[in-house]
Amino acid sequence: MTTTISDLDTPAALIDLERMRHNIDRMQQRMDELGVRFRPHVKTSKSLPVVQAQLAAGARGITVSTLEEAERFFEAGIDDILYAVSIAPAKLPRVLALRRRGCDLKIITDSVAGAAAIVEFGRAHQEAFEVWIEIDVDGHRSGIPPQGDALLAVARVLQEGGMRPTGVMAHAGSSYECDEPEALRRVAEQERSGTVRAAERLRQAGHACPHVSVGSTPTALAATALSGVTEVRAGVYVFFDLVMHNVGVCGLEDIALSVLTTVIGHQEEKGWAIVDAGWMAMSRDRGSQQQRRDFGYGQVCDAAGNAIAGYVVSGANQEHGIVSLAEGVDARIAARFPIGTRLRILPNHACATAAQHPAYRAVRSDGEVEAWPRFYGW
Amino acid sequence: MTTTISDLDTPAALIDLERMRHNIDRMQQRMDELGVRFRPHVKTSKSLPVVQAQLAAGARGITVSTLEEAERFFEAGIDDILYAVSIAPAKLPRVLALRRRGCDLKIITDSVAGAAAIVEFGRAHQEAFEVWIEIDVDGHRSGIPPQGDALLAVARVLQEGGMRPTGVMAHAGSSYECDEPEALRRVAEQERSGTVRAAERLRQAGHACPHVSVGSTPTALAATALSGVTEVRAGVYVFFDLVMHNVGVCGLEDIALSVLTTVIGHQEEKGWAIVDAGWMAMSRDRGSQQQRRDFGYGQVCDAAGNAIAGYVVSGANQEHGIVSLAEGVDARIAARFPIGTRLRILPNHACATAAQHPAYRAVRSDGEVEAWPRFYGW
Repeated sequence: MTTTISDLDTPAALIDLERMRHNIDRMQQRMDELGVRFRPHVKTSKSLPVVQAQLAAGARGITVSTLEEAERFFEAGIDDILYAVSIAPAKLPRVLALRRRGCDLKIITDSVAGAAAIVEFGRAHQEAFEVWIEIDVDGHRSGIPPQGDALLAVARVLQEGGMRPTGVMAHAGSSYECDEPEALRRVAEQERSGTVRAAERLRQAGHACPHVSVGSTPTALAATALSGVTEVRAGVYVFFDLVMHNVGVCGLEDIALSVLTTVIGHQEEKGWAIVDAGWMAMSRDRGSQQQRRDFGYGQVCDAAGNAIAGYVVSGANQEHGIVSLAEGVDARIAARFPIGTRLRILPNHACATAAQHPAYRAVRSDGEVEAWPRFYGW
Repeated sequence: MTTTISDLDTPAALIDLERMRHNIDRMQQRMDELGVRFRPHVKTSKSLPVVQAQLAAGARGITVSTLEEAERFFEAGIDDILYAVSIAPAKLPRVLALRRRGCDLKIITDSVAGAAAIVEFGRAHQEAFEVWIEIDVDGHRSGIPPQGDALLAVARVLQEGGMRPTGVMAHAGSSYECDEPEALRRVAEQERSGTVRAAERLRQAGHACPHVSVGSTPTALAATALSGVTEVRAGVYVFFDLVMHNVGVCGLEDIALSVLTTVIGHQEEKGWAIVDAGWMAMSRDRGSQQQRRDFGYGQVCDAAGNAIAGYVVSGANQEHGIVSLAEGVDARIAARFPIGTRLRILPNHACATAAQHPAYRAVRSDGEVEAWPRFYGW
């Protein structure tokens, strides 16, 4: 017996497989054209079937945000892994265990103190960790500037300590704040040039630095040339979301992740339909709030996934969402969306919404639904 | 071999057991003094040991926000359960299955259409569902007004359809917007009087209405008399959080849930320490943003749980948190919090932060740590 959407309990995280495959192909094609390898960030999906589809399309290796991801995907047979969060010294035993099992796990750092901690542990356990240095290209979070002394000092500590400083990596997180193609291209070029400059300085200082890694979904899709870059990382493009829509890199019709929900009540005078997708199902992410269009907790679609213009999830409690017009009051909302009506909600931030769900429901174009596992935790 | 905090991987969700037990005793004592039974809302913890501690202290029955909670806790031996979200008709088969297994599961509705759907399903399966009617006491979400015709219409549909409309329930969610004792007392009295009025109107119409259920953590702690009320529900009090601190019902030193994190880097010029608790560990909840004091993504504490005045998680990405002064720049932050330093972060909203973690680490007063399971999903 096959399962279809109408068989599902709500709320449920749906993946529209046709959209997802289109998103994967679009990104891989761009990377192929730009002549760089593509290393998807699996923190968005944390789901093996999704990652397998990315690899099948041409991706090589993965990026992870937790050691749990590294361990799970290594167990599934993926061995080229970049852990793209500065390593906490106390996590080195887990890194070592993975490497001893044959995982080609690369770690990152952005300080002399961090490098020294890696050296100390690596020497004590006779392990030459492969360490990429995080470069700060836009001041949004971590990393060291491409031009300063610290870059060379970190590489020197690693090299002299017997570790292998073989790469640089950067993430232009500030690209999420853009909403115009020209601005995106500028940030992409800034990400590229800063990271390449860091690599060149390391080479001048005698380090080979074969890996030059950049990426974010907006910059990956905006870059027009990536000379000097060897690989690109991106995560959220696989599903896309309302934040990416506002940034300008996808349409509503590209968003592959949605939350299936059921209408459970109304407050007719206020123009509210109450649904069973609250913030537990949508996450508390309000990423579109500061953007050019605020979608509340999500854009309302019909059960087939077509956006219903003007209707958003305007408020959310733990297991209650309020569906209403973003502007104005629909006095006939109870007639429009009677109790039992099923809707899909497009999320602000796919990484955050997906994380609220133990599993995905992957919807094929013929309407059949498969359960795809998802994990969480550290 | 015993486990202590220093053995834990980060990020991790810690429960300070002494604080939790104090919070449980405080609430139960109030309920005993007010002469009402207490039915804790288990959506906050979703953890059996926590709920067992609440029941051991005197709670009777539980409130759930999902059928997953109902099923899990029923399997653990708890059979008096109120599912406090208007029932979606398609969920009735799961309700029926629980009732047929002996679970005294009560459901709620707030509309004639909802009541009619329950009647239709109940009749088809010869089940007289026990249904409480949700009352709207403050316009914040669901429920029907205590004074209107709809209340009696819903009860009539249920009664005539062979169901059992045996109670009314309300949740004064607007109490979260208060921050003064007098305002809290007013909302508590509004919640009580509206719900009791609804019960009286039902009784006048010939329904017994033995159950009169109210509650939210702020109103439960603010109410000075609960005449006519038979039971109170509250959830977040078990851990408390920064939102409740701002509402004025707990001190920072009462907050029993925190996220253990490790410093992984710095941006010294900006006065930032980067930690491995981002929004995945803290949740995206920014509940304190609109309150009298904005704690960012959380209040920073030392590893023992003592708040470090002025330091908050001022920004968060998925696995990165930015620790800084809420106001001003600490130019010596790298010396103050070197790489590897462990900190605890108090959350804005315990329900949301706990939901990000597969398990709790319950910290006893002697420093020993136990793993307490937690579940999620629907």
